[in-house]
Amino acid sequence: MAQLIIGIDVGGTKVAGGLVTLKGRLVESRVVPTYADRGFAKSYSQIVHLIGRLVQAAGGKHNVLGIGICSPGPLNPKTGVVINPPNLPGWRNIKIAEMLEGKFGVPAKLENDANAAGLAEVLFGAAVGYKDVLYVTVSTGIGTGIIVNRKIYYGKNGAAGEGGHVSIDYHSPYRCGCGTLGCIEALAAGPGMARRARVMLEQEHSLPSVLRDMTRGHLERITPLMIQQAAKKKDRVAQTVLDETGFYLGAWLGGMISVLDPEVIVIGGGVAQIGKPLFDKIKELADKTPVVPAKLQKNVGVYGAASVFLPAGEEAESA
Amino acid sequence: MAQLIIGIDVGGTKVAGGLVTLKGRLVESRVVPTYADRGFAKSYSQIVHLIGRLVQAAGGKHNVLGIGICSPGPLNPKTGVVINPPNLPGWRNIKIAEMLEGKFGVPAKLENDANAAGLAEVLFGAAVGYKDVLYVTVSTGIGTGIIVNRKIYYGKNGAAGEGGHVSIDYHSPYRCGCGTLGCIEALAAGPGMARRARVMLEQEHSLPSVLRDMTRGHLERITPLMIQQAAKKKDRVAQTVLDETGFYLGAWLGGMISVLDPEVIVIGGGVAQIGKPLFDKIKELADKTPVVPAKLQKNVGVYGAASVFLPAGEEAESA
Repeated sequence: MAQLIIGIDVGGTKVAGGLVTLKGRLVESRVVPTYADRGFAKSYSQIVHLIGRLVQAAGGKHNVLGIGICSPGPLNPKTGVVINPPNLPGWRNIKIAEMLEGKFGVPAKLENDANAAGLAEVLFGAAVGYKDVLYVTVSTGIGTGIIVNRKIYYGKNGAAGEGGHVSIDYHSPYRCGCGTLGCIEALAAGPGMARRARVMLEQEHSLPSVLRDMTRGHLERITPLMIQQAAKKKDRVAQTVLDETGFYLGAWLGGMISVLDPEVIVIGGGVAQIGKPLFDKIKELADKTPVVPAKLQKNVGVYGAASVFLPAGEEAESA
Repeated sequence: MAQLIIGIDVGGTKVAGGLVTLKGRLVESRVVPTYADRGFAKSYSQIVHLIGRLVQAAGGKHNVLGIGICSPGPLNPKTGVVINPPNLPGWRNIKIAEMLEGKFGVPAKLENDANAAGLAEVLFGAAVGYKDVLYVTVSTGIGTGIIVNRKIYYGKNGAAGEGGHVSIDYHSPYRCGCGTLGCIEALAAGPGMARRARVMLEQEHSLPSVLRDMTRGHLERITPLMIQQAAKKKDRVAQTVLDETGFYLGAWLGGMISVLDPEVIVIGGGVAQIGKPLFDKIKELADKTPVVPAKLQKNVGVYGAASVFLPAGEEAESA
């Protein structure tokens, strides 16, 4: 009994859930819509419904060790409170862990996405065998999770590992959403990449690029995926943007290495799927430390959420 | 018995040593010249002589729990090897911990200055009562020590906490000794401050400044102390340099806070003694986290070296 963990990954559009064994094997997974636009009560009932089905699949709550939840931040993993995520309107200081514990009579823990994903990579992903790991996720934002001695490092407010808000250029023209100039998130996350491509094409109208055709002239529609596709076609603008992105990430990781000296850096998230053209540049600059792509792509949120209930010493069976 | 720790602080010009109780009280201290220019054998005999006197003062080696040594880096705390410090010519891959253990029959441990000083501040200095602390020393270089859960955080190579080599400006005109552009050490440590003052005065010959008189026109002789004195006299150039230094340190610490979210930041080292004009600017930018001056000024190296033998849970008696 109590040998399964429920992992719940709450996103803006869907809630993914799964049953994970103590060896890190996903034995059941389900997805439901979040209906975030209908407010907290609706999303919560979706989550409760999903967990109910997973408890049933586990053969009852006596088989469930705990419920791990990850959601977009800001949130406080120590108190289990989701503060006010932009992607979950109506969620304001929600004591989600306490609510789910009360509802299901099973321990529940809240964790932020990047920390959870980093822990999952250490327990049964790309960083198995390592103790001190920096996990980075590059998508619409840049998140980091610091794992020290196979445990999440929290800092004072449970807010450590906000490495996306480290500036590499204190007089940058790009101001981050956090208010700081030149944060790596403002420069190198998906929206930053798209913006740099757009600015290049706007500033020089005669500059040829397939991105003009791909967006039918609506340069504000450029996406990281388009940049990746254009670069494959040897589009110079797209290649320059990818090169710069790799350079920025490499320069930033150089600093992170100076501070943390991790054994390995694992990079996940949508932008990381650009792969080799990006990783080559990063590795050139972060040369003292191995940089590897994340192993857990699909269901990383479910694995991550479940990880918070896994003992750090537990060996993985498979991912 | 075994209730005293010998702390040894090896510097380029002098070796400071002391006897420290388990409660963190310094009961005996001595200083001898390093004679670094006469090579390793001479310096080593100075250190051995000093330790011999301290063992004697302790009433014999059965009263000595261990010998903690700090020295300039690069060094490896895990293996106890001093690699090749620029300030200690002739020291090349010296297994100092092993040599002293063999000589005195007492356990010996090597630690780098900033880590040791950081630990000492946590155990009996400005950070008593805190667990997660960032220690920063600003003098001719910038060193950092990361304390997690009252223990030194090492990373892969025992080289973590080289936060002085985090760049805040990837396209800076200032290249650090480490090869990177815009490291905080290149911008804000003593030599960086002096260089910025000199460049300002060289670029604008008509710019009035008492620094011209203080150096009798030899601008290469500007020191951080002169800048501090000139700023007190309301010298505009000196005040600008101090303001910039505080701004750089604040911007850098903002990034360090994003990554580490420490409970408190302790700043020591010679430049930090400039005090209020520097700290005011830093605090403005690093506003989420308390920034306090180091408490252990004199003998910080001896306290630090001794700290590596103190149990992390030990409460301090006095400093």
